[in-house]
Formats: sequence, structure tokens, C-alpha cells
Amino acid sequence: MAVKLYGSVDSEATQRVQACLHEKEVEFEFVTVNTAAGEHKTPSFLACSPFGEVPVLEDGAVTLFGLNIRLFVTESRAITQYIAHKYDGNGTDLIMKDPVKLAVQTVWMDTENQRFDPPFSKLIEAATQGNRGGQDVRQYEKKLENVLDVYEQRLKESKYLAGDSFTLADLHHLPGMHFLRSTKAKGWFQGRPHVRAWAADILSRPAWVKVAAMSPW
Amino acid sequence: MAVKLYGSVDSEATQRVQACLHEKEVEFEFVTVNTAAGEHKTPSFLACSPFGEVPVLEDGAVTLFGLNIRLFVTESRAITQYIAHKYDGNGTDLIMKDPVKLAVQTVWMDTENQRFDPPFSKLIEAATQGNRGGQDVRQYEKKLENVLDVYEQRLKESKYLAGDSFTLADLHHLPGMHFLRSTKAKGWFQGRPHVRAWAADILSRPAWVKVAAMSPW
Repeated sequence: MAVKLYGSVDSEATQRVQACLHEKEVEFEFVTVNTAAGEHKTPSFLACSPFGEVPVLEDGAVTLFGLNIRLFVTESRAITQYIAHKYDGNGTDLIMKDPVKLAVQTVWMDTENQRFDPPFSKLIEAATQGNRGGQDVRQYEKKLENVLDVYEQRLKESKYLAGDSFTLADLHHLPGMHFLRSTKAKGWFQGRPHVRAWAADILSRPAWVKVAAMSPW
Repeated sequence: MAVKLYGSVDSEATQRVQACLHEKEVEFEFVTVNTAAGEHKTPSFLACSPFGEVPVLEDGAVTLFGLNIRLFVTESRAITQYIAHKYDGNGTDLIMKDPVKLAVQTVWMDTENQRFDPPFSKLIEAATQGNRGGQDVRQYEKKLENVLDVYEQRLKESKYLAGDSFTLADLHHLPGMHFLRSTKAKGWFQGRPHVRAWAADILSRPAWVKVAAMSPW
């Protein structure tokens, strides 16, 4: 069975996984889940995604105890790690092999998850609700700018977050950096030349360009 | 050189790493960082922890290019993964070996990171500020209860989150479940017998009991 990605092209989490599949040159079928119509909250979807959220990856190629098991993976960052391990050898290597380098990569993946994503998600939520200048928005912007200050220092000494090569630590930021570049936050790149160069580099990768072409924003 | 953990016994992130080191039976020196006095924001500490937060793990045993390099790892969940890989074969196995099982484990680790931790952290923050009943607090409580509903379903079919054995997916929840058990949220366990049994099981592990004995809360 083919790999299937159930998602929505306007979901950052879906875009993260699309980018990963393209980087790994994995062929997949994109199955649109109409979240505007609530399709992600139907019982059949909840059966494979307990929080009722996109994306979900189905990789039917798994055999357990001689049975062909439909394998569903949820949570975008868990899906990318699954893909990177499962399709080791295909396309771009997205996971460091050396344990010390992998530890460094994990730090930056967790930094994205714990420090970049929370204020970024709040900004997206506020923008969706038409709130672009409230007190809380400024607070999230400040948090995100502090994160970018740390990235600027890091990227002075290292071409990519985890080291010399592009990895999941960078890839997980793609939807966020794409969004920031398209908003007034673009100005944040001006005083941070290494962040700007890094963003320009990762956003011009052919895998991401394909995803961006499908994005409504 | 010995393994050193720079942290604070009242920090959940520090406790997460302490629990992991005990599970893996790794000897380490605990170096208290006096966060109340702002020691985590000093230039020397910022040099090894760019966000100025505890904990930081120093593992001086790494040799690169023939040099003995002081290796600092930040971000508690990155540290636990580093320890689990580096000390493979010691103490409790905390990472699934089978790639499919590992994918399942990663889903639940990411669920903790993305769904359990954000409302939990907000509740801790509110409790620290003496706010225990505001509208925002009720909103975070509701989010966390929804997460526990999904856990209840999961734990009906599986003894631990990732499968039959205790892994990092469970371990990452220890400080949170410890805190919830000590607050009014304890009532949340009553209607969720599988969550209650799981919490009682993981909180009684000798590794966690050692950490809890040092915790001020």
C-alpha cells in the first residue's frame, strides 16, 4: 500500500510533513481533510487521530506477526522522525548519525518545539482572529524575537541549527519561517543577518518550494 | 570526568532529567543553580545554556578529534534522549528498539510536549502566582482534562503510553503527574481509572521516589 498523508494544505503541521516527504523523495498520496467542514472531528478520523487533528500519516507497508497492519502516525514532529528513520538512505539525510551530533540536533529540535512554536502558534491564532496589535500579541512577538536572537548567535558559528548540514531541526521551522517572512515580522530578519540568510536558504529548497506552491498563505 | 547536572530541585525540567539518570543508573554530580538568585542568567551560565534555563547536563567523557571536549546538553527532553542513547545497556531501557514501536513512542513523547506540557506549564505558572481559580486557569484545566481523556483510552489498551514497557514517553510526565496528584487535580484521576493506575505505577518507581524526596513540592 502507498504512503498516504491525510491533511490540509493550510495547516502548518501538514506542511511540515509534506516538506519532509519531499526531502526524503517518498512518493505519497495527499488526502485532503476538510477541516473547515469539521471532517477531522468525525468518529472515523478520531479513531486514527485521538486529538482530532491533522496531519496523519498512513504507512501501510508494515507487517507485524505476519499481518499487514495499517499504521497511522500522528503529531507532525513524530511523523517526520518516523519518515527520516524509516526511509534512511532515500533523499536527504535528516538525522545526524554521530551520537554527539544527534544530541546537538535534538537540542535544537526541542528548542523549536518548546520555545519557537508556542509564541509562533499564538501569533498565528491571533492573526486568524484578526488580532494583530493587542498587548498579548506584542508579548508573543517579543518572545519570538528573543528566540531569534539565540538563533542569530547559533547561526554565526554553524550554517544550520544542528551543524553543517540541513536536518529536521531546520525543517521543523519551515512553515513558521515562511509565515514570518510574509508578515510584518519580516523586519525581524533585518537586524539578524544570519537568521535571514538561513531562512532564505531553507525556504529555497526545492522540497519546500513545492509545499509553498500549495499553501494558501 | 563525571557527569554533572546543573539544575534546581524545584524545577520540573530538572526533575525529569534526574529521574532519567536514576533509571539509567548513571552516577552524576548534582550542581545546584540558585535560580532565585538569578544564577541561571549570569554570562557564564548563558554560555552553556543560551536561554538561561536549567537544567544543563555536562558529559565530559566525549572525545572529538582527540580532544577532550566538555559537552553541554540543554532542554530536558533532549537531555533524556541523549542519556537513553548514550547509556544504552545501563539500567532501564527507555527507548524502543523496533522502528514501528519507536514511532509509537515518539507520538506519545510529542503528545506530552505539544499537548500535555503547555496547559500544565500554564497551571504551574498560575499556581506560583497565587492564581488558582481565574477564567484562564479553568481553560487550561479543561485542556489538560481533555488530554487525560485521550490517555485514559490509550491506557485501556496498553499498560504504558508507548506499549508494554515504561519508556521516556511515560518518564517525561513524572513531574507533571506528581504535581497533579498533590493538587485538587487529584480528583481528575477518580473518573479515569487507567490514568490513576498508570500514575500510581510510574510515581512509585524507585528512580522517581528518589527525585520526589528532594522536591520541595
